[in-house]
Amino acid sequence: MSPRIDLNSDIGESFGAWRMGDDAGVLAHVTSANIACGFHAGDPATMRDTVALAVHHGVAVGAHVALPDLQGFGRREMRLSAAEVHALTLYQLGALAAFAHAAGQRLRHLKPHGALYNMAARERALADAIAQAVRAFDPRLVLVGLADSELTHAGERAGLAVAHEAFADRGYAADGTLLPRAEPGALLDSPDEIAAQAVALATRGQLRTRAGTLLRLRADTLCVHGDRADAARIAAQLRHALDAAGVRVASLANEESR
Amino acid sequence: MSPRIDLNSDIGESFGAWRMGDDAGVLAHVTSANIACGFHAGDPATMRDTVALAVHHGVAVGAHVALPDLQGFGRREMRLSAAEVHALTLYQLGALAAFAHAAGQRLRHLKPHGALYNMAARERALADAIAQAVRAFDPRLVLVGLADSELTHAGERAGLAVAHEAFADRGYAADGTLLPRAEPGALLDSPDEIAAQAVALATRGQLRTRAGTLLRLRADTLCVHGDRADAARIAAQLRHALDAAGVRVASLANEESR
Amino acid sequence: MSPRIDLNSDIGESFGAWRMGDDAGVLAHVTSANIACGFHAGDPATMRDTVALAVHHGVAVGAHVALPDLQGFGRREMRLSAAEVHALTLYQLGALAAFAHAAGQRLRHLKPHGALYNMAARERALADAIAQAVRAFDPRLVLVGLADSELTHAGERAGLAVAHEAFADRGYAADGTLLPRAEPGALLDSPDEIAAQAVALATRGQLRTRAGTLLRLRADTLCVHGDRADAARIAAQLRHALDAAGVRVASLANEESR
Amino acid sequence: MSPRIDLNSDIGESFGAWRMGDDAGVLAHVTSANIACGFHAGDPATMRDTVALAVHHGVAVGAHVALPDLQGFGRREMRLSAAEVHALTLYQLGALAAFAHAAGQRLRHLKPHGALYNMAARERALADAIAQAVRAFDPRLVLVGLADSELTHAGERAGLAVAHEAFADRGYAADGTLLPRAEPGALLDSPDEIAAQAVALATRGQLRTRAGTLLRLRADTLCVHGDRADAARIAAQLRHALDAAGVRVASLANEESR
Repeated sequence: MSPRIDLNSDIGESFGAWRMGDDAGVLAHVTSANIACGFHAGDPATMRDTVALAVHHGVAVGAHVALPDLQGFGRREMRLSAAEVHALTLYQLGALAAFAHAAGQRLRHLKPHGALYNMAARERALADAIAQAVRAFDPRLVLVGLADSELTHAGERAGLAVAHEAFADRGYAADGTLLPRAEPGALLDSPDEIAAQAVALATRGQLRTRAGTLLRLRADTLCVHGDRADAARIAAQLRHALDAAGVRVASLANEESR
Repeated sequence: MSPRIDLNSDIGESFGAWRMGDDAGVLAHVTSANIACGFHAGDPATMRDTVALAVHHGVAVGAHVALPDLQGFGRREMRLSAAEVHALTLYQLGALAAFAHAAGQRLRHLKPHGALYNMAARERALADAIAQAVRAFDPRLVLVGLADSELTHAGERAGLAVAHEAFADRGYAADGTLLPRAEPGALLDSPDEIAAQAVALATRGQLRTRAGTLLRLRADTLCVHGDRADAARIAAQLRHALDAAGVRVASLANEESR
Repeated sequence: MSPRIDLNSDIGESFGAWRMGDDAGVLAHVTSANIACGFHAGDPATMRDTVALAVHHGVAVGAHVALPDLQGFGRREMRLSAAEVHALTLYQLGALAAFAHAAGQRLRHLKPHGALYNMAARERALADAIAQAVRAFDPRLVLVGLADSELTHAGERAGLAVAHEAFADRGYAADGTLLPRAEPGALLDSPDEIAAQAVALATRGQLRTRAGTLLRLRADTLCVHGDRADAARIAAQLRHALDAAGVRVASLANEESR
Repeated sequence: MSPRIDLNSDIGESFGAWRMGDDAGVLAHVTSANIACGFHAGDPATMRDTVALAVHHGVAVGAHVALPDLQGFGRREMRLSAAEVHALTLYQLGALAAFAHAAGQRLRHLKPHGALYNMAARERALADAIAQAVRAFDPRLVLVGLADSELTHAGERAGLAVAHEAFADRGYAADGTLLPRAEPGALLDSPDEIAAQAVALATRGQLRTRAGTLLRLRADTLCVHGDRADAARIAAQLRHALDAAGVRVASLANEESR
């Protein structure tokens, strides 16, 4: 059986008069769209248009749930209680689902954004709050989180299908954590390097760390960043390299929902 | 067949640390709850708690959709396009529906709030935008609007069940419009007067205007204001007067959904 | 005495992670900067950086005061009371002045933004509210408004120095109003046409309307739009044409404050 | 020389249609008002009215600067950079100062609110950011912070007058930290106990901890909480007890500005 992987990208991150990212360019190459839900980016009209664009490209629609911080783009950690995180997850899932439903679709997955992604990766109570909200909303949704993190564990505890996420364009430390953005090697620049890391993850479940060691890493989905100037080109090259390596690129699918 | 009417009230209008209204007190007496969806009031945790409270009281859960203006409590008119109104209606419907669904319920109705209510009562394009959003979200929802207004007409054009709303505690002009709040007689203070107007509306579809004339007015639902200090007491008295007059007080129900 | 004119531009309209406009490019050519104050755009860090940039370019710092509507970029009319407009004007003036003061400068002018600009041009009560707020904050500030509008009249009533604003890149109707943006000729595209209209305004106080008639128009300052892709180039060309025509391009100056 | 102390209270914490606290009741008894600046509470019209109320009562006007989190009332920690904190401090100082200036007053002090207060008490970089912003805005302002904390140290480093704050109605641990709100004894309920702790702090610079030990604590100002139902009564009783003990209750005063 050929290896299989999903390519996901964060889109719909414009807000009002402000534009961000090349959504149409990236959507041509990925299989899952994480759409901003109005808390870190996105507004109702942008969400409607972004859902339409994803549907047009045949890309699975998912919610990119975030902390309530437009000014900080959801990247600043905020000390919310688990109950608050549970509630904001439901709120954003519902809001986005309304646009998906109006477009004849349903949501397929949820991925927390930014600071919430990082907090949910390491704090069990927040991870459980998100997983429980997903379960209450629609147990068919796939929960996307950092590979082998508190969030994926919480999803498993809640009986959800989970997708372990890895990064083709980020450098990893020997212990499996991402190198901090300020360190050398934290961001892979060369499209060739990025493609090679993607293929190694998809075909062998491993990558070479900055220190040169091999790291085993489960990767059900790779994040394709949409906010770099060359995002669409990188996405195309990534997709091409995966195709050439015999990897089937397909959206996440909950077994029960296929 | 005995006359029948719904009693609706705007609830869930707290926000963060700020409290508003006596929700539990009012919910004991009404049949439909219009719950704030985070745009003029309400936040995710408040919405979750408010839905739970309404469900506890056996009151039908509906969305109180508003303009994006927390500072102005949704009472300041904003020149939004019909497309923007369509999108914000879907967004708020979805957000609230997620909490209803998690509580084992579904939304039953939508009523626009404040400035949006007034604009939708007189502007056809905005009224159609709301009606179309309701239809796209769930055609079983009842659309609540000012009796015989552009909004109820839009709902009828869209094939929705509509509920014509009247006010037991507001004075009316001879032409059927509400007296402006600054005018004498605009707000009925006496619980007896309010109860009498409610019974006249429910049993005979008419009320006596400030000028003394009789006004025919279709009233499927009466608004019980929750933000006056004596809201719960007024609601109790209203309910009692309707019961005594042989009026069946029951939530709105779309024929198809009963 | 040679004719004299100010060139003003709206800058600092980024917000959080979102960028807008080529501020540095435009600031090299204009004499007055209208800086967003956090209500339609701008956030504290952006304001600090924008003030520093304006100061670096020797451009006069002014407040671009707006309605509280980030999502709508301050372009949607909102029905605020005169008292609310008075208060939000003071608030934004103070917030921006703090950054100017920390940079060793003081504010020189105020110009309302977007929908507030349009409302203040035609509604006397709102215009007076803004003028009174400016007077209370610092009577040396120059009040910038649409030429010969309710706002400039209000400024004169309040004893403020006022600057009548005209547009080098907008088409005018015979009655002196701007052509609506949707109409042909509403936006001048050709840099030559824009420069010609600027020179005619600065040297002869007149322009040719879409209908071909001559319109007399007082222009103390011309607005240079910063949000078109070629903003910096247009600004440079405009400045060059004015210099070549012998017009002195200099910031607004309240006589008393020089 | 008789002992002297300031009584400060957090006021102006209403927002839009939502009311909070009994500002007029508390202002009758305190000497310094910490006024919300729109980030955790307050809006421009509320700020204008609150400044007027404080001036009417002859109470010193100061800024209650907060994190940008209306929904969380500024009580949720947010990971902002020192540069962001510096900028938001300047912004809020300026905004409030505009209303003070329009009322013929100037700001006298700044006290961070909620989560920012706690973060600034223990994180030197944030404390320095606030102190530097105060110094850049107006070096005559008194910086109010938790007694003997990173914030008061930062103020001293910056050459500012600082006021060490203590709490008459909170229980302290033996090490001088406040007992967490969830613990027994964290909140003193009895007006007599509160008055006794206030007098001990003002006259002897000490209090008795929960464990029964004596704690030495410098207290230049005592916080009178305005959000309890009996706030005005507690404030009156506190004031009376201090007067009876011969303590002079007077607003903070920078030596240089007297």
